Amino acid sequence: MSPAAYQPLKLDGDGVPKPASRRSRFTAITITVCALLVSLYFLSPLGKAANVYSSNNSEYAKEPVPSMCMNTAPPTVSAKANPWKNLNVDEVVQLRSWLSRDELNLNLTRSDIASLSDNSIFLIENVRPPKADVLAYLDHDGDAPKRFARVTIHHGAAAEPVIRDYIVGPLPLSTDTTIRQLTEIYHEPDVPYNARGFAQMGEMVSAVQRFMTPLENITQELFGGTARGLPNDTLVASGAAPFSFDGSFRRAWLTWRRNTAGPWLHPLGFFQYVSMDGTDPSQWKLLKVVYNHQIFDSNEEFIEAFQNGTLQRLPYPDEKDPIWSSRQRRGPAPDLDDRAGPRSVSFNGLRYRVDRDNQYLTWMGWRMYLGFDRDMGLSLWDVGFRGERIIYELAPQEAMAQYAGNDPVQATTAWLDRYFGMGASVRDMLPGYDCPAEAQYFPATVHTALGSYTRERAICVFELDTGRPMTRHHGYLHEHGVVKGYAMTVRSISTVGNYDYLFDYTFFVDGTIEVRLSASGYLQGGYWESKQTGYGSRIREQTMGSLHDHVINYKVDLDIAGTENSLLETTTSVEEVTHPWLEDDWGKTVLQQHIVHRYIATEDEALLKYPKNFQGGYSIMNKNATNAWGNARGYAVHAGVNPIHNTVVGSKRLLKNANWAQYNLAVSQRKETEPTSSSMWNMNLPGKPTVDFHRFFDSESLDQEDLVAWISVGTHHLPQAEDVPNTRTITATSSFFLTPLNYFDYDVSIDSTNAILVNIPTEAGGEYTFEDYGVKSDFCLPPPVAPVTYSNGVEYGLDGKRASPRTAEDLRKNAELYHRIKMEI
Amino acid sequence: MSPAAYQPLKLDGDGVPKPASRRSRFTAITITVCALLVSLYFLSPLGKAANVYSSNNSEYAKEPVPSMCMNTAPPTVSAKANPWKNLNVDEVVQLRSWLSRDELNLNLTRSDIASLSDNSIFLIENVRPPKADVLAYLDHDGDAPKRFARVTIHHGAAAEPVIRDYIVGPLPLSTDTTIRQLTEIYHEPDVPYNARGFAQMGEMVSAVQRFMTPLENITQELFGGTARGLPNDTLVASGAAPFSFDGSFRRAWLTWRRNTAGPWLHPLGFFQYVSMDGTDPSQWKLLKVVYNHQIFDSNEEFIEAFQNGTLQRLPYPDEKDPIWSSRQRRGPAPDLDDRAGPRSVSFNGLRYRVDRDNQYLTWMGWRMYLGFDRDMGLSLWDVGFRGERIIYELAPQEAMAQYAGNDPVQATTAWLDRYFGMGASVRDMLPGYDCPAEAQYFPATVHTALGSYTRERAICVFELDTGRPMTRHHGYLHEHGVVKGYAMTVRSISTVGNYDYLFDYTFFVDGTIEVRLSASGYLQGGYWESKQTGYGSRIREQTMGSLHDHVINYKVDLDIAGTENSLLETTTSVEEVTHPWLEDDWGKTVLQQHIVHRYIATEDEALLKYPKNFQGGYSIMNKNATNAWGNARGYAVHAGVNPIHNTVVGSKRLLKNANWAQYNLAVSQRKETEPTSSSMWNMNLPGKPTVDFHRFFDSESLDQEDLVAWISVGTHHLPQAEDVPNTRTITATSSFFLTPLNYFDYDVSIDSTNAILVNIPTEAGGEYTFEDYGVKSDFCLPPPVAPVTYSNGVEYGLDGKRASPRTAEDLRKNAELYHRIKMEI
Repeated sequence: MSPAAYQPLKLDGDGVPKPASRRSRFTAITITVCALLVSLYFLSPLGKAANVYSSNNSEYAKEPVPSMCMNTAPPTVSAKANPWKNLNVDEVVQLRSWLSRDELNLNLTRSDIASLSDNSIFLIENVRPPKADVLAYLDHDGDAPKRFARVTIHHGAAAEPVIRDYIVGPLPLSTDTTIRQLTEIYHEPDVPYNARGFAQMGEMVSAVQRFMTPLENITQELFGGTARGLPNDTLVASGAAPFSFDGSFRRAWLTWRRNTAGPWLHPLGFFQYVSMDGTDPSQWKLLKVVYNHQIFDSNEEFIEAFQNGTLQRLPYPDEKDPIWSSRQRRGPAPDLDDRAGPRSVSFNGLRYRVDRDNQYLTWMGWRMYLGFDRDMGLSLWDVGFRGERIIYELAPQEAMAQYAGNDPVQATTAWLDRYFGMGASVRDMLPGYDCPAEAQYFPATVHTALGSYTRERAICVFELDTGRPMTRHHGYLHEHGVVKGYAMTVRSISTVGNYDYLFDYTFFVDGTIEVRLSASGYLQGGYWESKQTGYGSRIREQTMGSLHDHVINYKVDLDIAGTENSLLETTTSVEEVTHPWLEDDWGKTVLQQHIVHRYIATEDEALLKYPKNFQGGYSIMNKNATNAWGNARGYAVHAGVNPIHNTVVGSKRLLKNANWAQYNLAVSQRKETEPTSSSMWNMNLPGKPTVDFHRFFDSESLDQEDLVAWISVGTHHLPQAEDVPNTRTITATSSFFLTPLNYFDYDVSIDSTNAILVNIPTEAGGEYTFEDYGVKSDFCLPPPVAPVTYSNGVEYGLDGKRASPRTAEDLRKNAELYHRIKMEI
Repeated sequence: MSPAAYQPLKLDGDGVPKPASRRSRFTAITITVCALLVSLYFLSPLGKAANVYSSNNSEYAKEPVPSMCMNTAPPTVSAKANPWKNLNVDEVVQLRSWLSRDELNLNLTRSDIASLSDNSIFLIENVRPPKADVLAYLDHDGDAPKRFARVTIHHGAAAEPVIRDYIVGPLPLSTDTTIRQLTEIYHEPDVPYNARGFAQMGEMVSAVQRFMTPLENITQELFGGTARGLPNDTLVASGAAPFSFDGSFRRAWLTWRRNTAGPWLHPLGFFQYVSMDGTDPSQWKLLKVVYNHQIFDSNEEFIEAFQNGTLQRLPYPDEKDPIWSSRQRRGPAPDLDDRAGPRSVSFNGLRYRVDRDNQYLTWMGWRMYLGFDRDMGLSLWDVGFRGERIIYELAPQEAMAQYAGNDPVQATTAWLDRYFGMGASVRDMLPGYDCPAEAQYFPATVHTALGSYTRERAICVFELDTGRPMTRHHGYLHEHGVVKGYAMTVRSISTVGNYDYLFDYTFFVDGTIEVRLSASGYLQGGYWESKQTGYGSRIREQTMGSLHDHVINYKVDLDIAGTENSLLETTTSVEEVTHPWLEDDWGKTVLQQHIVHRYIATEDEALLKYPKNFQGGYSIMNKNATNAWGNARGYAVHAGVNPIHNTVVGSKRLLKNANWAQYNLAVSQRKETEPTSSSMWNMNLPGKPTVDFHRFFDSESLDQEDLVAWISVGTHHLPQAEDVPNTRTITATSSFFLTPLNYFDYDVSIDSTNAILVNIPTEAGGEYTFEDYGVKSDFCLPPPVAPVTYSNGVEYGLDGKRASPRTAEDLRKNAELYHRIKMEI
């Protein structure tokens, strides 16, 4: 590395490094200054002290003298325009105007003030262009794909209220721009209004207030609070899902909790079942009240039991130790934890290139574009290695969490978090904590019914030394050496109410990718009493962690040497074979393993589980492309940690809306009409899902077709005391690998120069020598760690103007939706 | 951190940092000098440039000015003497003399010159003391346990040659010292001589020479070489195992290879079956010759077929591209790979404490002693966390590799690598490559039949930031924060001929341990021809990677709140239950998960596999110790990556000698008489093993007894082109976790101060503030990376004197044993 390759870091207000290109004069000055100081330094006593390190090796004395190794912005690269880039705020503002024109007869009300009985826009987002158009653009210098917007409209004013998606385009808006309903990607394109998303944060508040006001004296006595108590010590409700089976009703179980740090761990064992049919909240009904396994058909019955003394009471809420459910420290820190732990530094500068405008990056032969959407957040596109596309699209699809328990909420909860918007739930990450100090960040913008917002640190990218060699051998004739095991990770974290999902995509120098989902955050705790035995563990006086499964589905559109690929099943089994060369000493037969390869012909056989004892697996191959040794080139799906699928199959609450969760993976023909395995409305439509995954599997050929692998990860979460305050990512994590399978002619990581080859001395007792390809970590002063800063991002109103900052309570409401319904009276 | 806590690094010849205590004067001078330069620095232009980083945050300006952060030796700790420490060279020399006294009638010949028909010492090693003695010593200030040696003697001069183990002690030698045969830990204490280990490296050479000399013209024509050809381009043989079924014979298939870089990838398809019965190699017989599926009962028959033209020939060996099987680079390096990748630095000093003499270390509440033995290398002892012992012994037991193929060697190979000595096969690691640059090293000493040797870098220890938070949540009321995910790893790498085993023990801040085995090195390649289809992949013109399973077994002696523990089985299943509060809308029943806990009463039910879909698992619990919430405290065995067991069950070549490989784990009562699940002789005694694992399982109670979990990891290796030149650790890796299960009352990682808590502003738009517990990474100049040095360790003769250095060829012979039999004529 020549010093000229360094770029000085300039931090702006939020600590995000900016490209240094505008600062080249500053760079030149700094370098000159450094050179000066360095001369000074080596004339100084410290310079002599530094020579301690080089005193016993003459080669080492040739090292450059120490200087500042500035925390550079990443080197740049210039990519073609990102075809998956979201609309910007201006475009969305213009689209809102365009959609509001009378001639369209959409009769829209401003979405930030619309009532349930109005028509309003729920979402505006880019449409991902057809793959053929993108390939023509990227691979054949065709025109950039035309841009379109997807618009979700809540038709609350319709005679039969309904939700519809529309396609508007091409963009930019012109006389050619048209609008049409988007139907081809949905099995049920007219989405029942009862399955609608939360547009107005407070839509349940007035009804819940009606149901709780008569109970104030009772809740005060039973729980020490009311639903309109002190700001920091009152009761909050949380609704469970699904709300509906097929859209014919909208009902929810509410569970009440103490409003303290980590309210999810403070359930009170008090439940209300409410009906929210129709567009007039004043007509919504309380159907049931449940407390300590006593069931009442109305508040009146509950009040009567309370008053006549027949109510069997639970113990008064435990109020000892107010910090136990917070993230505050409680015990002494371990020995030496006052020292900051080790920190990764790229002394020679970062090794990935970034095109920030196009959200594109390259590292060690890898390339990829980033996408981001409201429903599922970060996605990766056109992922290539060494000049060849390996994955066209790698994107999470849905996150299921199904609970069990002996109370109305835990027994009936089946979340599909796409509903809440995994992308909309992404917040800025904490630099140095959520990602290593050296990580670089990418922003993301989402447009909702309330406006738009940009998170500067929505996505981070970093390279780490895994600490484990990629390959190594101790040997003799050019056999002794190591290739270092570096990895680059792209991460985004989505906090959906209580839970945090860490989406990690990690790339390795041999062509392997690990897709990993880790979970942290709070449990959805249940009220502990002995009848909950078998559904989890007691984790506090009155709190339990409830048994649940998480399963998260990914779309992996692999393209191996082109789009025409086939699905290979590999199995191993035991055979007894006779070998003619065997003697009688051992007998003439052996028991041994044997591999059977079979191409799976159609989608009918492509709903798959990992084989027992992982004896074999599944790979995407190109039969018509072989490596030098005549084997079809491919990529294998290799199970990682916690390779599980959903335990419960056939539950009515997940009847047809998340069938991918039954499998470890499934493979179907890629179709523009089957872009995702779920939809945000699927959660509330288990009986009549907007996207019915099983309908993708209709006997189509998998023989040299464009294939998509739908791969799931997950955890069986049997909670325990160590989930308090937050679940540990060490075991709450699951992954799969995509790894080359005869894709190359050899392990290409051997080409790395971050490697060493040992030359054993030719004479006994001689000196070992080393080939390190001239790659040495610089001896230089890395910049200090920038102080942590944080912001809630930049928010815009529907008019595109910067919105006023919001209070913590407002931010929380927006973030936690009906997971935390709080009265304000 | 005050600067005084830093210690300067002084490298000696091999680059291993030495404790700095002797250098405190030097330290003081250096610190003064640093302070001086630092003053100078901040008056200089560079000092002003550095202020770029602090210009926009007043708090940051208070940071200490940059100085050198010297690469310290780790902080020290003083442990009780390590009860598992091996004998030193002097002790072993004295033991050899003591054993040679006439009065013992052992009739010993010096083991470095002994022939097969002599009596000689194969091994001298420490005996691990009884657990009760150690616990009395460690926990109750009892006396240090008495020390004993285990001595393995080859009785080649006996009428019926046999191998026996002896116990000699107590040590140091005195008139109280006695010797007796060690029988109680073996099911067959008199080990058949035909199952013996390799004491003399060349014992097969003369016989093999006899078998090959008549074939020189033929091998020259068929393979382009002879068994006594040019030094670097000749033929070498490798023997397969097992040699015997029950000790009644000693026979091996030899496969011939080209002697080039990575000979394991250069098989020639030429095999000889040899009988090695008895102690006189001149009587050993050639039983069969196999070439290209043609079988001959003698060399004469083979020569005749060659001469009369009936021999069906294989193609002449491919000699293109001589480097393909070496570790030399072949293609261009990736973009930016000329920069050294990121490197982990403990800017504030290392955070683990070391007692180097006692091979003891502590980190973040963890403590452990290290042990090391000839058979299996590194082991961990008295592993505790937060003042409580969790594991008494954590030690690998055996490594199985069973192959399949359509040739005499691959179809019959079943390695058990303890035979070769996984500890004896440990070599120095390459600093900065095999372990991160900052790692610290521990030495290990092994005493063999040829002498003793010490490897300075046998074991490394390092801490890394995993890059993934241990826990995190984005929240509001003291809910928003991150605990960093640090891990400390203890590693040793054993190279057994072609294969490298990376033994990693990784400790996390929450009390979790990951035990991971990764494999690299060379495949045992087979000769590729179409009849090998189904047994692997072609990876070169004439080479295939052969299908095989690796399974590696560990002893995990967990002690949960004492030694009296029980084995808990947890299973989850689906139930349909009626809940009275349910309405007709969804129906009155739900399908949901349910947990069943069952304590396994006896060893008869404790040979275990992970449940299907990992629904549940196994834990070691103490029924009599509960956490604050009334749950039994325990540690769970949590499957990691590649949680597999052996595919082939019932093979004659692994009939009874490795039955642990059939299971993911097994739990038995701990007994002093069942210290290990295998022995070095097991490989060659599948029908009559020295240690028969299944015999541990004899109906004994597992109810509040001292328990041992025997846990296996492994890989099904279906080789592919990307195994060339060496197998990648990215997928050739397997692990299990030991993780607290209601062991604590909460997740203790929350006590970490390498963490952050975010305070959300009380007013809209206010500044976020942060609690970082005062822990900040220092702004200082880390020392340069020391240049790589390497040595073959320190070797001693049987007399305890330093041995002369050896040539590369001699080193290789010692390392690869009969994996590479090379003539020298």
